[in-house]
Amino acid sequence: MNYQTVLDDIANRLAPLLGTEGRVADYIPALARVPVRQFGIALRTRDGVEAAAGDFDTPFSIQSISKLFSLTLALRRLDDALWQRIGREPSGNPFNSLVQLETEHGVPRNPFINAGAIAVADRLLALGLGKHDVLAFAGHLCGEAIAFDAEVAASEAATGFRNLALANFMKSFGKLDHAVADVLDVYFHQCSIAMTCRQLARAAGYLCRDGAHPLGGGFDAVINERQARRINALMLTCGTYDAAGEFAFCIGLPCKSGVGGGIVAVVPDTLTLCVWSPALDATGNSAIGRRALELFTAQTGLSVF
Amino acid sequence: MNYQTVLDDIANRLAPLLGTEGRVADYIPALARVPVRQFGIALRTRDGVEAAAGDFDTPFSIQSISKLFSLTLALRRLDDALWQRIGREPSGNPFNSLVQLETEHGVPRNPFINAGAIAVADRLLALGLGKHDVLAFAGHLCGEAIAFDAEVAASEAATGFRNLALANFMKSFGKLDHAVADVLDVYFHQCSIAMTCRQLARAAGYLCRDGAHPLGGGFDAVINERQARRINALMLTCGTYDAAGEFAFCIGLPCKSGVGGGIVAVVPDTLTLCVWSPALDATGNSAIGRRALELFTAQTGLSVF
Amino acid sequence: MNYQTVLDDIANRLAPLLGTEGRVADYIPALARVPVRQFGIALRTRDGVEAAAGDFDTPFSIQSISKLFSLTLALRRLDDALWQRIGREPSGNPFNSLVQLETEHGVPRNPFINAGAIAVADRLLALGLGKHDVLAFAGHLCGEAIAFDAEVAASEAATGFRNLALANFMKSFGKLDHAVADVLDVYFHQCSIAMTCRQLARAAGYLCRDGAHPLGGGFDAVINERQARRINALMLTCGTYDAAGEFAFCIGLPCKSGVGGGIVAVVPDTLTLCVWSPALDATGNSAIGRRALELFTAQTGLSVF
Amino acid sequence: MNYQTVLDDIANRLAPLLGTEGRVADYIPALARVPVRQFGIALRTRDGVEAAAGDFDTPFSIQSISKLFSLTLALRRLDDALWQRIGREPSGNPFNSLVQLETEHGVPRNPFINAGAIAVADRLLALGLGKHDVLAFAGHLCGEAIAFDAEVAASEAATGFRNLALANFMKSFGKLDHAVADVLDVYFHQCSIAMTCRQLARAAGYLCRDGAHPLGGGFDAVINERQARRINALMLTCGTYDAAGEFAFCIGLPCKSGVGGGIVAVVPDTLTLCVWSPALDATGNSAIGRRALELFTAQTGLSVF
Repeated sequence: MNYQTVLDDIANRLAPLLGTEGRVADYIPALARVPVRQFGIALRTRDGVEAAAGDFDTPFSIQSISKLFSLTLALRRLDDALWQRIGREPSGNPFNSLVQLETEHGVPRNPFINAGAIAVADRLLALGLGKHDVLAFAGHLCGEAIAFDAEVAASEAATGFRNLALANFMKSFGKLDHAVADVLDVYFHQCSIAMTCRQLARAAGYLCRDGAHPLGGGFDAVINERQARRINALMLTCGTYDAAGEFAFCIGLPCKSGVGGGIVAVVPDTLTLCVWSPALDATGNSAIGRRALELFTAQTGLSVF
Repeated sequence: MNYQTVLDDIANRLAPLLGTEGRVADYIPALARVPVRQFGIALRTRDGVEAAAGDFDTPFSIQSISKLFSLTLALRRLDDALWQRIGREPSGNPFNSLVQLETEHGVPRNPFINAGAIAVADRLLALGLGKHDVLAFAGHLCGEAIAFDAEVAASEAATGFRNLALANFMKSFGKLDHAVADVLDVYFHQCSIAMTCRQLARAAGYLCRDGAHPLGGGFDAVINERQARRINALMLTCGTYDAAGEFAFCIGLPCKSGVGGGIVAVVPDTLTLCVWSPALDATGNSAIGRRALELFTAQTGLSVF
Repeated sequence: MNYQTVLDDIANRLAPLLGTEGRVADYIPALARVPVRQFGIALRTRDGVEAAAGDFDTPFSIQSISKLFSLTLALRRLDDALWQRIGREPSGNPFNSLVQLETEHGVPRNPFINAGAIAVADRLLALGLGKHDVLAFAGHLCGEAIAFDAEVAASEAATGFRNLALANFMKSFGKLDHAVADVLDVYFHQCSIAMTCRQLARAAGYLCRDGAHPLGGGFDAVINERQARRINALMLTCGTYDAAGEFAFCIGLPCKSGVGGGIVAVVPDTLTLCVWSPALDATGNSAIGRRALELFTAQTGLSVF
Repeated sequence: MNYQTVLDDIANRLAPLLGTEGRVADYIPALARVPVRQFGIALRTRDGVEAAAGDFDTPFSIQSISKLFSLTLALRRLDDALWQRIGREPSGNPFNSLVQLETEHGVPRNPFINAGAIAVADRLLALGLGKHDVLAFAGHLCGEAIAFDAEVAASEAATGFRNLALANFMKSFGKLDHAVADVLDVYFHQCSIAMTCRQLARAAGYLCRDGAHPLGGGFDAVINERQARRINALMLTCGTYDAAGEFAFCIGLPCKSGVGGGIVAVVPDTLTLCVWSPALDATGNSAIGRRALELFTAQTGLSVF
């Protein structure tokens, strides 16, 4: 299949829609001022073939996509012990809801809701890892130096009252071992990482390679096959906030989205893909990104179902 | 792959566990008296190869697996119009909870929770279809005459207070068009259908054949490819009650379970499988059936992820 | 105090507001067609002094005010044993919510929410009492023959899906002993009783007389003093749906309201009062009735606080 | 009535029960080490008659009873404007639940649940008042110098994750104007105030005096009559956590309790009372204190109903 043609076609088709659907996240200034009329898409196959179109080399705030990297980092060290603190079920509630956390005594439903990612950050601290390790890991995966966006990290910390509530709530149930400020420092920084579509398509590559390093060569395995397949399962059932069912239904690929407008998708054994466009729909997922993924699966016939 | 060898091996391995895990559903006498030490498994590939082991020819109460057939029947006629009354998201609550139904004004989260299946039954009535059409459809799919278990249907009706609550609740929100008694008569009867593992493995075959009739030949398509893939997506995200995340994580196949102890699983483009053992775990899914599916995916490497 | 002057003054002051606030209940035709511009008020002191103004002799549908009579009837026979099935706490949720009932396993929070009153009706059946006993009891209390409104009772039954949901839900938790249809037949009929303000002011009189019969003379005590004071406490904390705190705050009297627009209020040891005006505010309480009670307590200084 | 005799009798009757019911709050060491076998009771009538028994002169941590003073301080300055940020309805949930706060977008149900008291603290800061003003106000009301317990305040701050969650959650809804740390500094300190039964019985006296200063003389009114009666109403409907209905039912007086084991009760127009015993029942109210109040109302016949 000529992926470059497919991506070019998607970019062309969606160009007229840029700026017409959804709203850019505006809870912090650094996100609010991102120009809405941007769109990038990039993929990399299991065999290292790459294709990209649009603003694929523009860095954006990866936000919740970082939960993929922190989860992977924790899982490669803790394996199933990680699940003593975090569930694996869809939440059935918006991503930052406290209701379910109360009913379930401080155990987050899965590692992709905010509470779950905060619990993962606490586990990283327990392993002696921190924000710089998440950053280095993501850089190692994509083969390039990447960086935190200091302004974004500071804004997240200054306005992250909901996350402070979640973290303190879990702490009140004895479900965080480290100080809330330390745990959130990891979390707010990982959310502030800036990456491009191309970097993300590369970095996620271990998820279509049974856990092997995306760039191959002399690298060790990132995680084992079983772990990689399970992360894909979590992405499909829980990766796109309260729209996971809708994504599975309409797109049929494991995806992880962020409020920066990025979405990483996996075609198991085949390729990884990243699409980005800043305007979000009502569920907090990139409105145009979602359309791009629908076009991609329709044109390529690639879907896990 | 020699599927018969795989199934024989699974049956042998699980034989010592029969009767040691889980509990038979006991809310109605006809289910409560099913002998616990039974296990059957059957599969049929896309190309018509069959394999089976254990009590694969023993009929059991398909219960919620019938939601697959009623959904398919409604979807082939209504297509996307069906989703005006029913959502497509995981519920995050036990399958018969009213809480989410209240918050979301009588719209069930998906067609596989009880409320959703009741809403599907209401749609069938709106199409001029009824319980006999669901039965005939399931029989048509597996190529054999099947029947309601009249005792089970009567018991369901006599004890189905939770379902009466759900149906009346939806009715109070104006989300059912037909009389509650008529809608539930369809629902209780479809749940009472008795089928064997072999019949179910055959009947579900359209889900691994892009919607084509399982038994091929001169039959028309059951549903189109897009519809078939979407049902698979729904099964994976919502098919096993509140354990859907766990099933995706550990098994990685679209599944639909019932409290009779049956589970139907789909390997897209490859095969359909039915496993049955009456004792249920705490999530309402067959305890041994779940182990059988884990062994199957481990031994065959078949998983959508 | 010259109560007649007070009531006349209230009626005069509120006359211009009739028809300008709130909405008549419209879930059944018989209630929807009640002319909105009506207002009645009546009181009877502990010593038998009566005063009344406006449409105090017009019968209206007492609806949830009947919960007072059914509770009293059950309590006089069961005393504290009644509370094994029903709580005594405010609900914090709208009067017909199922959420709390689910969390608390089918035990209604108090006897004045619908679920609680349905549980009381089940207790009456267990005592060998029925709808005619509730009617006779209310008639006995006010000293006049009163009647069901057959059209209202039939409409309640035909449209009472929410109550059917509540009753079946409790039944599913094993918290109702009798058939749902029988329990709701009592409930729908008691709600359909038609009474006037004067009749209700008289009938509730035992609540300001330590449980003695309102009309005195040779009658036996209705309930004992302790029971009467406890019903007053329940009215204050739970008698006006989700506005009980607001009523306590602004009016400061035990009250029981109904969607027919009536409100019964008690000044312990002093008098009972009934006000009626059909238009309801957003909390389901008579909008003008509430204003009347605020004026009454402001002018008389009568409040339990 | 000879109140001294009544209180002596209550103290005698309850002495054998000390240490046999309930558990001392143990979430901070300073509370956990309070000897359980203590009981004090004190009252002061509208006319200044006092009576007391047991450990009535032993200071204890007033905890949530302080919500009474902070509310009064805010209400005297803001009057009804206070209710723009805080509701007046019973919560129907445990006192520190976040569920209702989420459903109602950060507006606490009433000023006596933790979230409500935190919102009151935010209002005090907006008025230029702080923790020292709450302390001075309570001291002014009882006519004696009182103090914070620095150890308790520090422990509350060090372990108050649930309150941090509540405050950050309200902040995330834009419902707190001041920094969470500043608001909670007020809240944690007010909870740490130590007072005796006698001091509290005196300090609350304005609630049985139409808002006039408890100690009379040349003092200004604390609040006006309307405000005093409304605080009584709030105490009755919301003053004892999730047992408010039970207190109204069994005791029938406006009460405010704290996890230090104190309970302040008001007999409007007659007297204020404070009882203390450290062991708490499952609802967080003093187990023996509750019994003392039941005996008091039974023996004196004093109840608002």
